[in-house]
Amino acid sequence: MDQKKTTNIILFSGDYDKAMAAYIIANGAAAYDHEVTIFHTFWGLNALRKNNPPTVKKNFLEKAFAKMMPRGADKMSLSNMNMAGMGPKMIKKVMKKHNAMTMPQLIEMAQEQEINLVACTMTMDLLGLQKEELLEDVTYAGVVAYLADAEDGNVNLFI
Amino acid sequence: MDQKKTTNIILFSGDYDKAMAAYIIANGAAAYDHEVTIFHTFWGLNALRKNNPPTVKKNFLEKAFAKMMPRGADKMSLSNMNMAGMGPKMIKKVMKKHNAMTMPQLIEMAQEQEINLVACTMTMDLLGLQKEELLEDVTYAGVVAYLADAEDGNVNLFI
Amino acid sequence: MDQKKTTNIILFSGDYDKAMAAYIIANGAAAYDHEVTIFHTFWGLNALRKNNPPTVKKNFLEKAFAKMMPRGADKMSLSNMNMAGMGPKMIKKVMKKHNAMTMPQLIEMAQEQEINLVACTMTMDLLGLQKEELLEDVTYAGVVAYLADAEDGNVNLFI
Repeated sequence: MDQKKTTNIILFSGDYDKAMAAYIIANGAAAYDHEVTIFHTFWGLNALRKNNPPTVKKNFLEKAFAKMMPRGADKMSLSNMNMAGMGPKMIKKVMKKHNAMTMPQLIEMAQEQEINLVACTMTMDLLGLQKEELLEDVTYAGVVAYLADAEDGNVNLFI
Repeated sequence: MDQKKTTNIILFSGDYDKAMAAYIIANGAAAYDHEVTIFHTFWGLNALRKNNPPTVKKNFLEKAFAKMMPRGADKMSLSNMNMAGMGPKMIKKVMKKHNAMTMPQLIEMAQEQEINLVACTMTMDLLGLQKEELLEDVTYAGVVAYLADAEDGNVNLFI
Repeated sequence: MDQKKTTNIILFSGDYDKAMAAYIIANGAAAYDHEVTIFHTFWGLNALRKNNPPTVKKNFLEKAFAKMMPRGADKMSLSNMNMAGMGPKMIKKVMKKHNAMTMPQLIEMAQEQEINLVACTMTMDLLGLQKEELLEDVTYAGVVAYLADAEDGNVNLFI
C-alpha cells in the first residue's frame, strides 16, 4: 500500500557522460522519495574505483585491465566527442561554470541520500577487481539480487 | 481503470541509428494507443535542433559545442560502422529503397501523433542551447518531470 | 493472479560485451522463473547470425552489409577497449580462466531455458538478412509484438 516506489539502474557503461546521466537520474529519484539502486557492472564498475587503491595481488591479465581502465569516475572519457581527452575537459569546464556537480560530487550525494551502490561480483571476478580497490560503503551482489529488486521496480534502466 | 498505458523514452544518444530506434518504438507505441514521451537529454538533444537556427548569443565554449555537434537529426552519425560518414549514407540508401522513414519524417510523425517531445533544460543550459534553436512544439522540463511520468510508466527505456 | 513475471530485453547493440550482459540478465531471469524475451534489432541481430550460412541472393548493398557486419556472436567486438580486436581476446581469455560462459554458450543456454529469441523483421528487411542466415528456433516479429509483451512487463531494458 504505502510501499516506496523504486528506481533500479544498471550502469554498464564506463563513459563519463553516461555515468553522469545515471547518477543525476538516481539522485533525482532519491530526492523524489524513491528507493534507488545503481548496479555497477562491466565498465560501470570503474565509477566505483578508488583514486589511490592499496596494492593488491593481480595476475598479468588483471594488471593489464587495471592499467587500461580509468581509475575512478573522474578519469572516465566521453561516449561522444571525446576528442583525445579534450571533450571531458570541455564538459567539466562548462559544468564548473554552471555549478553543475562533477561525478565525484554526484557519487558523494548518492551516498548521502543512501542510494544503494552495488558492485557486480561476477564482473569483479572477471576483471580481477578486489573490494579494497573500490569505494567504501559499496554493496556486493550478483544478477539475481538485481532481478529481485527490479521485478517490482517502477523505473528500470540500462545505461 | 481505463487509464492509458504509457511509454517513456530517455533519448541520451546522439547516434542516428539509436535515435531511429527510439522514434520507431515511440511511434509504434503511440499507434498502439500509449501515451508517449521522449525525454531528450545530452547528445539526444541534437535530434531536436533546427537545420537553420536563428543567430543567438553564445560564449566561446557554447559556440564550440554548437559547431561540433550535429545540427538536427539528419546530420547525426551511426553508433556502428560509421566509416567516416559512409555508414549513414548506406543506411539512408537502403531506407529509401525500402520506403523506410528518415529521422525528419519520424519526428514529424511523432508530432502528428502528439508524442510529447521534451528537451532536458539542464543539458540545454550546459551545452548553451537556446529554445530558438530547437524545433517548434517542444516541451521544456527536467529530470523530476521525467520521473513523475516514468514512475507509473509501462515501458521505460534509456536509449 | 499467478501470472509469471516477465523480462523483455531489446538488444540493439552489436557489441560482444553488451550482448553478453543482455544474455546473462536474460538467463538469470529465466532461472528466476521469469518469462523472457530478447528482441534483436539493428546490430543486435548479428548475435543470431549463423557462422556458415547457406548462400542467399543479395543485392550489392546487402552484400556490403553482410560482409562488414560480424557473422555470429563470437565475432562481435567490444564497446570499450576493443583495441583493434585485442580486447575481445583478452576478455575471452579471462572468461575461459574463470569458466565464464561465452556468447555461443549463453545463447545455447537461453534456448534450453526457452527464452524467446526474436529477430526484428524490419531490420532484417533493411539489412537484407534472410531467415536461412539466422539460427534455428528464432521467432520473427516487429515492434508491435514487442510492445504487446513489454507493456505488461516487469523488467524492460534497452541494451
